[in-house]
Amino acid sequence: MVQFQQARLDASFAALSDATRRGVVEHLGRSDASITDLAARFRMTLTGMKKHVCILEQAGLVSTEKVGRVRTCRLGPRRLEEEAAWLARHQALWNARFEALDQVVQELKRKEQAHGREKKR
Amino acid sequence: MVQFQQARLDASFAALSDATRRGVVEHLGRSDASITDLAARFRMTLTGMKKHVCILEQAGLVSTEKVGRVRTCRLGPRRLEEEAAWLARHQALWNARFEALDQVVQELKRKEQAHGREKKR
Repeated sequence: MVQFQQARLDASFAALSDATRRGVVEHLGRSDASITDLAARFRMTLTGMKKHVCILEQAGLVSTEKVGRVRTCRLGPRRLEEEAAWLARHQALWNARFEALDQVVQELKRKEQAHGREKKR
Repeated sequence: MVQFQQARLDASFAALSDATRRGVVEHLGRSDASITDLAARFRMTLTGMKKHVCILEQAGLVSTEKVGRVRTCRLGPRRLEEEAAWLARHQALWNARFEALDQVVQELKRKEQAHGREKKR
């Protein structure tokens, strides 16, 4: 189970590591589009766009349906929830570590002030 | 500016597209570690771990410092805020599209029910 999840995260983060592919996902967030539309919008050959869409489809971020000669792309089925959860966990750890560091700094400051007061007496 | 941000997202999502590298980031979220520690923990050669750490370092997710013969790794300087914001925007678009679809479905249901009542009379 964990292994499947890891493979999904591998595929989706890799799919998102390209500006054009992120642009396609953003565009499909606003409306469905054919591969021809996407190729024109991103000034790319049909073959180039097909490759990007294929990578997004394998990662589950985009699904496609061919009706006649037109292949329409839309978002889904995956909603990037696992990816968002991973990042949120990471940021919680970061914040916890920073708070711990901050407490150490505050403690040192208190000790220094107390030491300063003692010296003045 | 946008181009720099895109390059940063390219590098960080690519860095996160590997289970071992995600594991290293998670581990460093709990405590700093030397490359030797990380190699042992992830049952990997020193050379293999150095490559992973190098990719994480280039993406700004991990920083390293060499003191004597030991290279210590810690999180940062980047906190994956841009990445989390990108995913959050994407999920907001998803939700908005689903809500719009849901409204269409509800509207169709209402019309069908009204039609059913008319037929019964």
